[in-house]
Amino acid sequence: MLSSEFPAYLATRKAEVESALDQTITVTYPEVIYEAMRYSLLIGGKRLRPILCLAACELLGGERATAMATACALEMVHTMSLIHDDLPAMDNDDLRRGKPTNHRVYGEAIAILAGDALLAYAFEWVATQTQGVSPAVVLRVIGELGHAFAATGVIGGQVVDLASEGRPDTNLETLHFIHTHKTGALLEACVTCGALLGGGQDSDLEHLRTYAQSIGLAFQIVDDILDVTASSEQLGKTAGKDLVAQKVTYPSLWGLEASRQKAYDLVTVAKDSLSGYGDAAHPLHYLADYIVERDR
Amino acid sequence: MLSSEFPAYLATRKAEVESALDQTITVTYPEVIYEAMRYSLLIGGKRLRPILCLAACELLGGERATAMATACALEMVHTMSLIHDDLPAMDNDDLRRGKPTNHRVYGEAIAILAGDALLAYAFEWVATQTQGVSPAVVLRVIGELGHAFAATGVIGGQVVDLASEGRPDTNLETLHFIHTHKTGALLEACVTCGALLGGGQDSDLEHLRTYAQSIGLAFQIVDDILDVTASSEQLGKTAGKDLVAQKVTYPSLWGLEASRQKAYDLVTVAKDSLSGYGDAAHPLHYLADYIVERDR
Repeated sequence: MLSSEFPAYLATRKAEVESALDQTITVTYPEVIYEAMRYSLLIGGKRLRPILCLAACELLGGERATAMATACALEMVHTMSLIHDDLPAMDNDDLRRGKPTNHRVYGEAIAILAGDALLAYAFEWVATQTQGVSPAVVLRVIGELGHAFAATGVIGGQVVDLASEGRPDTNLETLHFIHTHKTGALLEACVTCGALLGGGQDSDLEHLRTYAQSIGLAFQIVDDILDVTASSEQLGKTAGKDLVAQKVTYPSLWGLEASRQKAYDLVTVAKDSLSGYGDAAHPLHYLADYIVERDR
Repeated sequence: MLSSEFPAYLATRKAEVESALDQTITVTYPEVIYEAMRYSLLIGGKRLRPILCLAACELLGGERATAMATACALEMVHTMSLIHDDLPAMDNDDLRRGKPTNHRVYGEAIAILAGDALLAYAFEWVATQTQGVSPAVVLRVIGELGHAFAATGVIGGQVVDLASEGRPDTNLETLHFIHTHKTGALLEACVTCGALLGGGQDSDLEHLRTYAQSIGLAFQIVDDILDVTASSEQLGKTAGKDLVAQKVTYPSLWGLEASRQKAYDLVTVAKDSLSGYGDAAHPLHYLADYIVERDR
């Protein structure tokens, strides 16, 4: 794939994912919960996680159709974490992707339950909808997904993140823990699950873990930079939150320029980890570039 | 099994389940989330759901060890639903099983996250810890568990329950929907998952579904009766809540005596559904009796 072909690749994958997501949830009685789930799941976003999952599957010679149920489940899990993060008891956010957050539309109780329902449904969806691989592989995928999200993953990161608010003495080690868990763990699951569904071996998983950890950290550094440099309108969420919450961030520890450089260095590490796959890794290379180029 | 042997059976199973639950979660950094998960998971309770799961597995000739991971997962899922139900945005309860609710001890943010973590971990636990059956069976169990908890199950019931508060015009059909989903769906999953892990066929699952639906409804009727007749001390949670919340309940629709009779009738239906299994069904018979005899 030429880099000039990447925008079309991205648009096609995004459309495929959104079409698949649209078919995951049917509104039935009691309508409000299904509508609340659909509201946040279908509100938009880059669909980076499902696209990474599909790309990792294809890298190893798998069919996208095999990974699509898991790709959708990853977006459900990610969406549920955003719904709960935005709650008044957590980050108390009114805007997400330029739209009112779930609890601003449906109230706190339904927002909590919509998140819970998306999480349970994600696992059900993988277990019941995955076709084309052995059940043993699907179980491994479910194990990876659970581990990436539970206290060992996203939630552990969120806990440390909440605890470090208003603590300007947070050190780099803690900041690193937050991001490798809150953001990194699920990105890692995207590529490892995709790789498993594509027939990957343990060595493939290792390469892809390095890739994901690197782009995960780069992603978070760029996120921190954007919080400083972009407007709320550009972000589709409240800007300057980290400063207000007295959060330690990469720019606050390293400065903006060194943070940008570090993000680019990490993308190089990510690309190098896939050097053994030749041209087949191009989509994952461009996806890594795409992640850091959000701040341009 | 003689009915005189049932108390010892129950005590033994409860101890086995609590020992297994104790081994599911190890406290590590960040400690507070693992402690919050353990607090609610190990605070006590009858362990009815895991015991039902193990009993269904044994009814069909399976080994208890095969069903233990799923039995623990069912208790994790049940516990997470209690943590979230107790939140200020939901039922706003201070007491559960005679102890402060999770958010009263750890704060709202951690309580939300502890519930989320338990839910994801439940699926991971089943996927990674189940041994002695084919992966295809484990996938069916995960599908049943997800379906029983998501918007199609417990959460759908909770949504209608919240919507019917302060609405004395709630009809029997709606009340029935609430309870077959909020309570019934997970009880059904307990026995169907146990049956699947015990090598059950579809016809076994059907019998056990009837059993679970009947005891689920009986359980809820007894719960409603207890809310009227028992003290907070006896319940280990706030009594008289339904009255305060102006909730329609079975006693409010049928009266206390007719409600009691209905609960006993449902237990008869439950027992009859297992008539084909002979003496092997005795534990499940006594468990059905045990559920309605809570109000004595």
